[in-house]
This record gives sequence, structure tokens and C-alpha cells, in this order.
Amino acid sequence: MKAKYHSGCPIAFALDLIGDRWSLLVLRDIMLWDKQYYDEFVGSAEGISTNILADRLKQLEADGLVSRRQDDNNRRKFIYRPTEKAMDLLPMLLEMAVWGARYDKNTAAPPEVIAHIRNDREGFIAGVRKKFIAKSS
Amino acid sequence: MKAKYHSGCPIAFALDLIGDRWSLLVLRDIMLWDKQYYDEFVGSAEGISTNILADRLKQLEADGLVSRRQDDNNRRKFIYRPTEKAMDLLPMLLEMAVWGARYDKNTAAPPEVIAHIRNDREGFIAGVRKKFIAKSS
Repeated sequence: MKAKYHSGCPIAFALDLIGDRWSLLVLRDIMLWDKQYYDEFVGSAEGISTNILADRLKQLEADGLVSRRQDDNNRRKFIYRPTEKAMDLLPMLLEMAVWGARYDKNTAAPPEVIAHIRNDREGFIAGVRKKFIAKSS
Repeated sequence: MKAKYHSGCPIAFALDLIGDRWSLLVLRDIMLWDKQYYDEFVGSAEGISTNILADRLKQLEADGLVSRRQDDNNRRKFIYRPTEKAMDLLPMLLEMAVWGARYDKNTAAPPEVIAHIRNDREGFIAGVRKKFIAKSS
């Protein structure tokens, strides 16, 4: 499923890892919507199928973008969290959100959130990162 | 080929238009590598196939991301150029390049270009835009 370009271009490299759109939507769920369980990803509005989801989670873990650990409260469940490498994708992901909100006439993006990202992207990113630092302690 | 999410999420909207990796590589060719002819896109290092390329160019035009006009010097050739909507993708595209250059041990991205983007992204973008304004006059 994954094309490997090996062209040396950093954009092509990024697309090799997150150019599959479902992978990026799962990372969005984890980083921006605070989802951490498999069942929560299944419930996202885009309607990912369970076999695609299982495949993408495995690939994201293999690519060092998410970590997985057993839930202390329920040993049969796993908690997915973003790695540093994934959080470094936030600038790109947020620029994508700003662009989408600008060009989609039917966007559901709250204007105040988009304004926050546009006016203080670094502050917004710091807020996202803080959630995961807090959780790991 | 195109999934349409209709979730209202601006990231999903963006992925609907440029979530296909080839589309984004063609936009890279046009905006960052100054390519404008079909034959030039075929020659890119990632080796796009001609049928995929033809399909993606048509889709990019339909989505308002590239414009196409006959070449005054050769009426059998077309010149592809980025629209404003495409140039508004530069922040995202450049953040992707910075990320790829950081995490690809074998990156071919020139460090001075990545440094330029990191230190003065807006200046870099202004330089890209200027090329296309100059060409259209």
C-alpha cells in the first residue's frame, strides 16, 4: 500500500509516512480531539473501516508516530498516544486546517479556533503538547 | 478514487483535495521546482506514471488548484500554473518539508534551504509568489 519514493525530497518523505489520508486523520483524532482508544477512532465522522484503522495504527506505530500501551484500568484495551515525531507534525496539520477552513464553504471548523491557530500557532501547539506531557507524568 | 468525507473538518476537507500524494507532488513541482509542462512532471524523481499524472492534473484543474493555458511558443503544449488557492498551500507544504528534512536521515534537502524556510517562512513564500506574479504580467 505504501509507495516509497526514495527521491530524497523531504515532502516525498513526509508523504511516505503520512500521505495516506487515513493516517493523518488518526493523528488528528489523537492530537487534536484527544482520542486514545481504538473504539474512539472508529467513531470519527469520516467513518474509517475497522480493517483500515487496524492497518494504519500498526503502520503509525512502526513509523514511530504513535506509541501504544495497555490501559491500567482495563487490561484488554490499549491507549494510543502521539510521539514527539508526531507532535512535530502539528505545524503542518494546523496549516492544513487553516487552509481547509478558508476554502470549504461548508466548514464546521469553529472560527475562534481557526483564529487562535492563525494568530498564535505556537501557543496553540504548546497547549496541545502540554496535554500529553501532563498525561505521561 | 477520491474519498469525500463531508465531515466538516477542515483537515478532512484539505485531504479530499490534496490527500492524494501525487497531487501534492505535482503542486510541489509547479510551485517549488518551477516546472510547468507535462513532460517536466513526468521527469520528476518519484517517477509518476503518465496515466496517474494526466488524471491528477485534470483533478487539480477541476479543484481550482492549477490553471492551464496554451504555450504561446508551441501551441501543442500547455503551461500549468498554480492558482492563489494552491499558493495558499505553501505554508503547509513548507512545514511538511521542514518535518521531512528533520526526520529523514537520507534527506537530499539542502540545509540552507530548510534553514531559510525555518527562519523566514513568510519571506520564502513571498519569493515563490513573486515568480508567478512576474510570469503573469
